[in-house]
Amino acid sequence: MSLTESAAVDVARSASLASRRLAILPNAARNEALTALHEALDRNRDYILEANAKDVEAATHAANSGNLNHSVLKRLDLARPGKYDDMLQGILSVRDLEDPVGKITLRTLLDEGLTMERVSCPIGVLLIIFEARPEVIANIAALAIKSGNAAILKGGKESLESFVAIANVVSEAIAGSSVPVSSIQLVKTRDAVSSLLAQDSLIDLVIPRGSNDLVKFVKDNTKIPVLGHADGLCSAYVHLDANPHTAVKVIVDSKTDYPAACNALETLLIHEDILGTIFPAIATALLDKGVSLRCDEASRNSLLKCLSPTQTAQVKLSTDSDYETEFLDLVLAVKTVPSAGSSTSAVEAAIAHINEHSSKHTDIILTESREMANMFMGGIDSAGVYWNASSRFADGMRYGFGTEVGISTNKIHSRGPVGLEGLTIYKYLIRGDGHVAGDYHDGVGGKKYAHTSLPL
Amino acid sequence: MSLTESAAVDVARSASLASRRLAILPNAARNEALTALHEALDRNRDYILEANAKDVEAATHAANSGNLNHSVLKRLDLARPGKYDDMLQGILSVRDLEDPVGKITLRTLLDEGLTMERVSCPIGVLLIIFEARPEVIANIAALAIKSGNAAILKGGKESLESFVAIANVVSEAIAGSSVPVSSIQLVKTRDAVSSLLAQDSLIDLVIPRGSNDLVKFVKDNTKIPVLGHADGLCSAYVHLDANPHTAVKVIVDSKTDYPAACNALETLLIHEDILGTIFPAIATALLDKGVSLRCDEASRNSLLKCLSPTQTAQVKLSTDSDYETEFLDLVLAVKTVPSAGSSTSAVEAAIAHINEHSSKHTDIILTESREMANMFMGGIDSAGVYWNASSRFADGMRYGFGTEVGISTNKIHSRGPVGLEGLTIYKYLIRGDGHVAGDYHDGVGGKKYAHTSLPL
Repeated sequence: MSLTESAAVDVARSASLASRRLAILPNAARNEALTALHEALDRNRDYILEANAKDVEAATHAANSGNLNHSVLKRLDLARPGKYDDMLQGILSVRDLEDPVGKITLRTLLDEGLTMERVSCPIGVLLIIFEARPEVIANIAALAIKSGNAAILKGGKESLESFVAIANVVSEAIAGSSVPVSSIQLVKTRDAVSSLLAQDSLIDLVIPRGSNDLVKFVKDNTKIPVLGHADGLCSAYVHLDANPHTAVKVIVDSKTDYPAACNALETLLIHEDILGTIFPAIATALLDKGVSLRCDEASRNSLLKCLSPTQTAQVKLSTDSDYETEFLDLVLAVKTVPSAGSSTSAVEAAIAHINEHSSKHTDIILTESREMANMFMGGIDSAGVYWNASSRFADGMRYGFGTEVGISTNKIHSRGPVGLEGLTIYKYLIRGDGHVAGDYHDGVGGKKYAHTSLPL
Repeated sequence: MSLTESAAVDVARSASLASRRLAILPNAARNEALTALHEALDRNRDYILEANAKDVEAATHAANSGNLNHSVLKRLDLARPGKYDDMLQGILSVRDLEDPVGKITLRTLLDEGLTMERVSCPIGVLLIIFEARPEVIANIAALAIKSGNAAILKGGKESLESFVAIANVVSEAIAGSSVPVSSIQLVKTRDAVSSLLAQDSLIDLVIPRGSNDLVKFVKDNTKIPVLGHADGLCSAYVHLDANPHTAVKVIVDSKTDYPAACNALETLLIHEDILGTIFPAIATALLDKGVSLRCDEASRNSLLKCLSPTQTAQVKLSTDSDYETEFLDLVLAVKTVPSAGSSTSAVEAAIAHINEHSSKHTDIILTESREMANMFMGGIDSAGVYWNASSRFADGMRYGFGTEVGISTNKIHSRGPVGLEGLTIYKYLIRGDGHVAGDYHDGVGGKKYAHTSLPL
């Protein structure tokens, strides 16, 4: 075992032990730690912002010399108006959420004197790997403590100074509370990641927050369950009876409200029969917002008839790979859905395309028909399926969850925006009075199970 | 891509397509298919039992020449009294369970005209790999159809003839129903397993049912989430205030009711202060049932004082590995928990041992103290934690779930005995009227979210 591996085992083991103590702390004790965390981060604002300024300075150099994306620089800067206060407020918001631990979701009388309860409990140890945003540390620490989970955090190299400063403040704040200090551990070295990803007997869930490449790397290199999404390839299908005004408004918002988000629109499917009617209105509105279109032949031909030469320059012929690309930019792939036969078959074709190409994140339909909408919402295999509403609503805050751990495109455990509930699991508690299984049988004198639901 | 790989992709892709059609079938249609399945298996009893007899004959030869475990032979035989009828009845029981699909578990008014629902839905495509028991095919086919999931099944080589016969009957029965034929596919070749385990973009969940080795092989060779348990290392802790009668009864049942089961007891922890009182009573009762004990020095010394020479022969000194062994036999590891200080510290020591060594399946405490029981139930990180009740209650039928897909020691999604609910996930449906995210902001004219809970 290399030194790094043994260090990773130590970190994971101490987190595991801390998680058992944290799991039995009452909500009040967890909340007190969050109050202390909030106060400490407030008190040490200057110290943390100074450290952050060093990161921003280094990143500015890197960005100016073309070695770093400017969007990373923006995410890095904690001194942007409101950002630090938002981070502080976020901790209090998490603190004030309902306790996700200890909820009884099932209670059954198995037999006289023998009761069973299903009770929510923390998952155990989370490994969170994130990139630029330094405020994620405070955010995740708060979510972990509130849900009774221990967390191991690893930040990106661009935010190292901020990370170390926040880490010091977090550790100091927790040390003064009844939450075990090892509940939140911050790992600085990059090579620790691989060793931590190998600790599948001690770490229960990995949450990567960052680029697709990061998420893919994590998924490919661990046996620990991963919560998150690599791609956010969202699609919209505009049916032939769509309200033109609604379609334009929703498509433009889905694509342009925040093009770099995972819930932004990447593929637009248009019913063949509206290529000359609703589609040009949608396309013109998108072009006006600076969106470039990658159209199949039919949709491009229809546009060429009515666009100005300047606009035409923004419309290119698509390739197959465009329908599998998360552009994260002002680019949209457009595909025509043949009307072949009934209107049902067009919806079916749209569903088939989306299930084959989308990333099971969020997909939407524009139609005035409840029947078509229901068909679409039943047939699409994605975490979110919307009718006449923007894909941009796929977000924990917008769903009313108060906060969000991330958005999951997994098919098990937790799907879509994941709130505190996604950081819990349950266990079954049985209380008896010497009850044994051998007494329950079909033969003479055998006892029978009652299996009566009890009030929660 | 080898031929096997391409065949695996074909199987997985057709299952995936079938799963989308199955997902939108109403409960009545799924139930009709189960009725048809029941009738077909009833009608073809002789055909299937003839095929099964060939498997049993081959296995009997293998067992007699020492190449096969006799317990496999027993599991293989569908002609054992009641077994075929149980299989048939099982299909009707699953059919008559509540529909797990389409349950609305959250409904929120996001804003006027904008509502969100969280609706349960099938996971998608299940891969079930099992060993000897041929009736699992019927059982799993029923569970998959009821929960709207497509399933790919791979049986063990010992049950090949039975498997092929049942497969033919299942396919024929489904072909006459509205459930797509590819919803249940049966794979016969052994080398298909590795190729199927590689289809993580098409298969959503693997359920291995069989030996620990099978489960470990599956977990080590796929990126698809695995539902199940490799080990069932269950422990009991007897506190110093345990009721002796209760302790003897519960421990004996936990160990001897069915020693080969995953919920059988493998480790017994005894409070130091009752080594000379309650422990000998427990030990004698176990020895009378033919159980061999692997004791640490303190517990062994205490027994040597009061046992007969014959009994003493059944008591050996334990090694460290005994506390990490799932014996699945009439063997039990025994360890003394030091009383050091308070009674709380003994419970803490028991919790620490169990969290370190048990497999997070089911662990029990014997005590008359509610306080100690609560401490134990909070501190133990296992799917089931019982107070004064046998570990053998860890079972889907006994929990009142009607049936069981398996028992999970995972920390996410589904834990403990998994019923139909464990084969579902959910999606979020939003219905709007042209609502866009850009309209909701803090600035002038910005809309606000309502986030009002609506009745379910």
